[in-house]
Amino acid sequence: MIRIEFDRGSAIAVGLMSGTSLDGVDAAVVRIEGCGLSAKAELLHARSFPYGDALRERLKDLCVPERSRVDDICGMNALLAEMFAEAARQAVSEAGLSMQDVDFASSHGQTIWHIPEHGPGERDLESRDPARFRSTLQIGDLSVLSKRLGVPVVGDFRPGDMAAGGQGAPLAPYGDLILFRDEKRGRLLQNIGGIGNCTALPAGAEPEDVFAFDTGPGNMVIDQAAWLLSGGKMTYDDGGAWASSGTPCEALVDKMLEHPYFRQAPPKSTGREVFGKAYTQAFVELAREGFRLGDADIVASATLFTARSIAESCRNFVFPRCRIDEVIVSGGGARNAELMRMLALLLPEQRVCSSNAFGVDDEAKEAVIFALLGNDFLRGVPNHLPSATGASVATVLGKLALP
Amino acid sequence: MIRIEFDRGSAIAVGLMSGTSLDGVDAAVVRIEGCGLSAKAELLHARSFPYGDALRERLKDLCVPERSRVDDICGMNALLAEMFAEAARQAVSEAGLSMQDVDFASSHGQTIWHIPEHGPGERDLESRDPARFRSTLQIGDLSVLSKRLGVPVVGDFRPGDMAAGGQGAPLAPYGDLILFRDEKRGRLLQNIGGIGNCTALPAGAEPEDVFAFDTGPGNMVIDQAAWLLSGGKMTYDDGGAWASSGTPCEALVDKMLEHPYFRQAPPKSTGREVFGKAYTQAFVELAREGFRLGDADIVASATLFTARSIAESCRNFVFPRCRIDEVIVSGGGARNAELMRMLALLLPEQRVCSSNAFGVDDEAKEAVIFALLGNDFLRGVPNHLPSATGASVATVLGKLALP
Repeated sequence: MIRIEFDRGSAIAVGLMSGTSLDGVDAAVVRIEGCGLSAKAELLHARSFPYGDALRERLKDLCVPERSRVDDICGMNALLAEMFAEAARQAVSEAGLSMQDVDFASSHGQTIWHIPEHGPGERDLESRDPARFRSTLQIGDLSVLSKRLGVPVVGDFRPGDMAAGGQGAPLAPYGDLILFRDEKRGRLLQNIGGIGNCTALPAGAEPEDVFAFDTGPGNMVIDQAAWLLSGGKMTYDDGGAWASSGTPCEALVDKMLEHPYFRQAPPKSTGREVFGKAYTQAFVELAREGFRLGDADIVASATLFTARSIAESCRNFVFPRCRIDEVIVSGGGARNAELMRMLALLLPEQRVCSSNAFGVDDEAKEAVIFALLGNDFLRGVPNHLPSATGASVATVLGKLALP
Repeated sequence: MIRIEFDRGSAIAVGLMSGTSLDGVDAAVVRIEGCGLSAKAELLHARSFPYGDALRERLKDLCVPERSRVDDICGMNALLAEMFAEAARQAVSEAGLSMQDVDFASSHGQTIWHIPEHGPGERDLESRDPARFRSTLQIGDLSVLSKRLGVPVVGDFRPGDMAAGGQGAPLAPYGDLILFRDEKRGRLLQNIGGIGNCTALPAGAEPEDVFAFDTGPGNMVIDQAAWLLSGGKMTYDDGGAWASSGTPCEALVDKMLEHPYFRQAPPKSTGREVFGKAYTQAFVELAREGFRLGDADIVASATLFTARSIAESCRNFVFPRCRIDEVIVSGGGARNAELMRMLALLLPEQRVCSSNAFGVDDEAKEAVIFALLGNDFLRGVPNHLPSATGASVATVLGKLALP
């Protein structure tokens, strides 16, 4: 009944990604031709806009049930959208374009809560506990963004996947398939944002061959540990320098890997509500009091914890299902040299490299992918992989706001 | 760049309205011809689906900053959408139709917070206090609703008006103009939901002649007083029976009307964050301890408070600007006979009647209007009145989710 059409073959889009690491918003200006699995994306310009410390702390509080409040959530939903709009405008300008050249924007939004599974109980809807009702919440209002940018804005993709029976995550595999599928080589796309997530693309993969899941914390525990141990002076371990000055404690890492998440079979997803502030505080306490570690050794252990959780995910859940020749890392973690070194050591049979080696800026990959998802919404094309999320059917995810 | 088209001239829509009274969701099945100010709406069927007591209490808690939590808000956003979907399906079935006959649904959503004005401070975005940042938050996820209903769903209209410089409210005047404009008679549309809001339609009004504002509490204080005084047994004063058994205290009502909101000139809007639980608790305490009133007299006083706040709004802000011949009441308040009797006494120069007298079901009016707003979104037509909300320009409000 509804038809949405572009008036030209290719579109210029701004993709906006703000991940669970809460480090800021990545903006990618992308030229997109076609749609669906045959879409072609050309990155024109990318730029990361870090959040200030005060904003990051406010956002962290929104992600803690006891500290979150409806008035803060309400206002932050609009405030973040204003900031996303400034970021998008800046990126477009740096690309040498004006907003008149842009066809649409597409924004992931900032996840502040995610409930992947229903709690127990088959009671009627009215008496369900909302805090245990399958759902996901991203903020950064699309209408505010659209009115500020003067172009249509698509976003808020996850709730639709959950409504279709999926876990609402991961969504990136759909874009990974478009950008990285290879006829001959099996590839694992490992994104290391706040949370780590991987997409397995067997050689010559069809959509139903792709599988993906969250591997566990990405930079989240490392960042939070750096923040705690530096007394709030560092928000991340730049380049992995701090970790490389310490020695990781294997016994501590073994203990951390006993967390039931790592044994759970895919599809699975996780977030700040599991591996957030409280988790890292407990980790740091255990490291100090149970293992008598110094600060550098704690950061090194947090880094090895992420590296091993990824490598063990590969061995337990990926390699038994398909051959992987290349592990392609994106997200902030690709810039942590110590983490990359550990990963290469732990996965000696694979080539471990950054997505930069494939022409996709390691920090911009997800922003490019969300531009692709928005493009598909506007063309009425399903834009997720049920094999990755567990959805029962592929549908058109997202919401559209008009300028 | 984007064109959205219907494949036939008229559409069948389900409008869903869930007001600040938190009494439930009203579903209206409507046939709509045309769009914009020349749209014609025919109500095929309407039905109210009351929330259960437990759900209403949970929702009230979501509207209190200190009791609200991100996990509850996240889950309730999806849970309410599931309930809205059941309501829509039921209404469509009662109309003798199937979902295949329905072109789209349009949902207001449940407002859980509203910040009409920025707090003081011209600081940069990052350091703004989100709780004082102009914004509004409606829940009842559109993607969940769309996937469940199998039709496109439009909704979440208010943030766009705020982004265009408006207060995000009132939106109903746009529909009031379409449904009730008269060449010869000046009409005041007074809706009495949780909040009272009025739309002034001067005889022969053009869009820029319409003005509207929230008059203050509608049923909110009456309902909450009935609930408190009945020890939770009554959620509202059915038909105004309790109020009619008591005598209102004019001195108490005079005191309540000293609230600065009533002196503020339009455009203005308010909500549960001003006249909610805490406000009514203070009112009941004052009535008991300051004025020694019994329960029936307290309910009668709450009722007179609403009636006088409406009548004084008329005298202070409406009658000086235009002649009003008819006061047309909709919302649950139209079914409170005592409130209607008081209003008629206080406005002797006008004909005071329910919207039923004009063929628009008094409880369904807003649901019909939100169906009109959704229809306009899908046709790319601006769907609000800047003269009512204070927006600087008329734009297309809403967000669209696809099934």
